[in-house]
Amino acid sequence: MGAPNCLPRTRGRMTVMEINFEKGKELVPVIIQDASTNEVLMLGYMNRESWEKTLETKRSCFWSRSRQKLWIKGETSGHFQEVKEIYLDCDRDTLLIKVEQIGGAACHTGFRSCFHHRYEKGGWKISGERIFDPKEVYGK
Amino acid sequence: MGAPNCLPRTRGRMTVMEINFEKGKELVPVIIQDASTNEVLMLGYMNRESWEKTLETKRSCFWSRSRQKLWIKGETSGHFQEVKEIYLDCDRDTLLIKVEQIGGAACHTGFRSCFHHRYEKGGWKISGERIFDPKEVYGK
Repeated sequence: MGAPNCLPRTRGRMTVMEINFEKGKELVPVIIQDASTNEVLMLGYMNRESWEKTLETKRSCFWSRSRQKLWIKGETSGHFQEVKEIYLDCDRDTLLIKVEQIGGAACHTGFRSCFHHRYEKGGWKISGERIFDPKEVYGK
Repeated sequence: MGAPNCLPRTRGRMTVMEINFEKGKELVPVIIQDASTNEVLMLGYMNRESWEKTLETKRSCFWSRSRQKLWIKGETSGHFQEVKEIYLDCDRDTLLIKVEQIGGAACHTGFRSCFHHRYEKGGWKISGERIFDPKEVYGK
């Protein structure tokens, strides 16, 4: 009997494993975290193409589910995410990437983090810091 | 024309919005972060039932996609996740929950974080701290 799926074979401390794209219909969720503060900035999705593009350019590149196309984060706003560290989880189906967020904000609404609604007393309250005005950055 | 989908109506600083379960076939990804250190511990999925159970018990409760059942994190190991803060993203389709991780480790392999494979020079290297021996905790 082999090792459980979640425990990869090890060679020294290097592990022989690959991202499992099949589980999520060729997409894996990717958590983006600020490398300096550890604040979680957003969650995006990558397919193999955007994963390879991320490695090649050292900038976050996602698959846009709504537009069904490759999406280089920052291509419109100039607010790229410079990749600092990349992690894979035990099931090999989720990525965590630590980045330097150019422009200081990840959310297209101008907030530092996309997670700017905090649950309080049964409702959602705006929380966090708005860094830019989306009208100025996106012209709309 | 109404406001873009991502910008909820506001009443004072409270927003009238609901989690969008429909987008991901009744499941939303949930990032679990250590409330003290901001380390990302794992990513799970919630349906409405597990979301309500999480609110009711103030402990993380997920939907297990592999077992297709409600999964109270820690029900076998005793390593529950005490919920401290809950955030929703701009698209209303991803949750971020800050927790106190009982037992100090979130991963069933005994590591503090499920994200214990770090990408280096084209491969994955074991990274992070193993807190417990899974054989002792799960008996297997």
